[in-house]
Amino acid sequence: VIDAADTPQLTVDLDAVDRNIARMQAAASALGLAFRPHVKTHKLPLVAARQVAAGAVGITCQKLTEAEAMIDAGLDDVLVTFPVVGVPKLRRLVDLARRARVSVTVDAPTAARQLSAALAAAGTEVGVLVDCDTGYGRTGVRSPTEAAELAALVAQLPGLRLEGLTTYPTPTDGGAWVAATREEFAARGLEARRVSGGGTLATYRMTAADGLTEVRAGTYVYGDRTHVVNGAMRLEDCALHVRATVVSRPTSDRAILDAGSKALTNDPVEADGYGGHGIVLEYPDAVIERLSEEHGHVDVSACPTRPEVGEVVRVVPNHACGAVNLYDRVTLLRAGDVPRELMVAARGCSR
Amino acid sequence: VIDAADTPQLTVDLDAVDRNIARMQAAASALGLAFRPHVKTHKLPLVAARQVAAGAVGITCQKLTEAEAMIDAGLDDVLVTFPVVGVPKLRRLVDLARRARVSVTVDAPTAARQLSAALAAAGTEVGVLVDCDTGYGRTGVRSPTEAAELAALVAQLPGLRLEGLTTYPTPTDGGAWVAATREEFAARGLEARRVSGGGTLATYRMTAADGLTEVRAGTYVYGDRTHVVNGAMRLEDCALHVRATVVSRPTSDRAILDAGSKALTNDPVEADGYGGHGIVLEYPDAVIERLSEEHGHVDVSACPTRPEVGEVVRVVPNHACGAVNLYDRVTLLRAGDVPRELMVAARGCSR
Repeated sequence: VIDAADTPQLTVDLDAVDRNIARMQAAASALGLAFRPHVKTHKLPLVAARQVAAGAVGITCQKLTEAEAMIDAGLDDVLVTFPVVGVPKLRRLVDLARRARVSVTVDAPTAARQLSAALAAAGTEVGVLVDCDTGYGRTGVRSPTEAAELAALVAQLPGLRLEGLTTYPTPTDGGAWVAATREEFAARGLEARRVSGGGTLATYRMTAADGLTEVRAGTYVYGDRTHVVNGAMRLEDCALHVRATVVSRPTSDRAILDAGSKALTNDPVEADGYGGHGIVLEYPDAVIERLSEEHGHVDVSACPTRPEVGEVVRVVPNHACGAVNLYDRVTLLRAGDVPRELMVAARGCSR
Repeated sequence: VIDAADTPQLTVDLDAVDRNIARMQAAASALGLAFRPHVKTHKLPLVAARQVAAGAVGITCQKLTEAEAMIDAGLDDVLVTFPVVGVPKLRRLVDLARRARVSVTVDAPTAARQLSAALAAAGTEVGVLVDCDTGYGRTGVRSPTEAAELAALVAQLPGLRLEGLTTYPTPTDGGAWVAATREEFAARGLEARRVSGGGTLATYRMTAADGLTEVRAGTYVYGDRTHVVNGAMRLEDCALHVRATVVSRPTSDRAILDAGSKALTNDPVEADGYGGHGIVLEYPDAVIERLSEEHGHVDVSACPTRPEVGEVVRVVPNHACGAVNLYDRVTLLRAGDVPRELMVAARGCSR
């Protein structure tokens, strides 16, 4: 059945998914940490449910669309790690807070006040984690003192339930940042009951909890070229493949796939010194050197045998989360089962 | 209404679209060329119909999914500029050939024979243009002689109607490549009635038809940062915007938008020396320097006034075609009209 399907086709190996879920859950449990997988990678309630069944305390979403799709499917404990700002998003959050246990991150007093006003007016509440920038340079307060001052405000505001903090990335300072923040909290009579760090590579490298109580990770469930290159995962544990057809062999050194930037994304490998756009499983020496929108330009000059026109190959993309976001449908594979096609519940829903 | 919509939101200014359609159609007509717009940019039958109403002879599609969506909507003359290879795609092409006037490109004898077998068995036919690589290094035969030899094969095969050739890019040799190919065709008793070149910038720069009979262009209809940077279009003619909200201002120099790589793509500007991920219309000195999946990291240090949290801005993306491909819905704007939300007919349909 799978061989008859047209390409490009996004496939997920559920046996590999189950192995990946078990390995990450075991890693978090061994550290004594609650695990809260990030669903931005798969956007599928079916996979989220397996993550929770394996021991996750709940899920992490990067946007309200993902939270809506997951809560619609029965997931009931959701952390949204993105600033909920603006009237439309606040309205949507209020609706979600009435239907599930929801927590959010906040990084500024104004945002906290607007969040409080919206939730209190609706007679509901959310948990709040202070978003701490521990070196990434994105959102987040930038010092333990700033974190505690914002926490003190949150603790006073109706509709908000102060729970703790999130860090990104997970601090590599042996817990000093988190310890300092806990002290600043304590000095104000506050408690950081929940301290959430994360990342697939960070969690696999962690040797002590360092003050965290919870970890978030997303990509571990599927894997991708970035996580093979950085050593977090083995190529054979990558569950997500883009099946593509060789549609042209204009020269002996060049093969063209029917998978370009609209099937693989232009997302780079997140590691220095790696170019290219994915790993071709059947031709490990091939280099996907350039992407047009619908064409993958592959240099096959280093391959001992070379693909023919019409051949179907499997590509492990640079970035699983970005690739999934391009597809309306994913085909689920399991040894011994008939392949099943499923809608990607939370994709294309950009808001 | 538009102000109340949540972000990121993809909007299209139909007044600008109409101006862009008129300008490109006039440019092609002035050169004496048939114009065949590429729908991969917009993926909307509504826009394709306006292009045809303005004088286009038909449309160009980059994949069968686009052709299916357009023929379903009543468009009846479609060129598919992608190798149709493999049983699933051949079956789909046969179905399309029964419903509309379809032409395709071919760059190899094996592909031509398989195409012929599928179409002849179904008792239908398609027009064929020999795909010529005139310097891009993607698909295509690589010399006038090779083009003519493939054309001679096509002319003999049932189910195929030899029409001419496509070039990519449009040759800049004053017509020498096309003239040489016509001679090689003539030496074999063949005629290249249709010679199709293309590209938005190439068409606007063209001063003579140079042996072409038809041009294809896609991005001209919406514009993007690449086409502002390369001089093909003015910023005020860019019809496609991603509305985004400033969700965090962690430092005085940094603003974070709710539009990252899943709202803008990581597609680069196709011009040397330009980094960044789009133009912020309201803050032209701002630099979108980095994208996370859902965050746009904006350096606002060069801006005389700086955006506040909650402010909505409009971003002209690097690459219109890639951005459109990320969204299920687009909001159509026209001066004096209520905004209308429309499904992007051919997106998410990766095959």
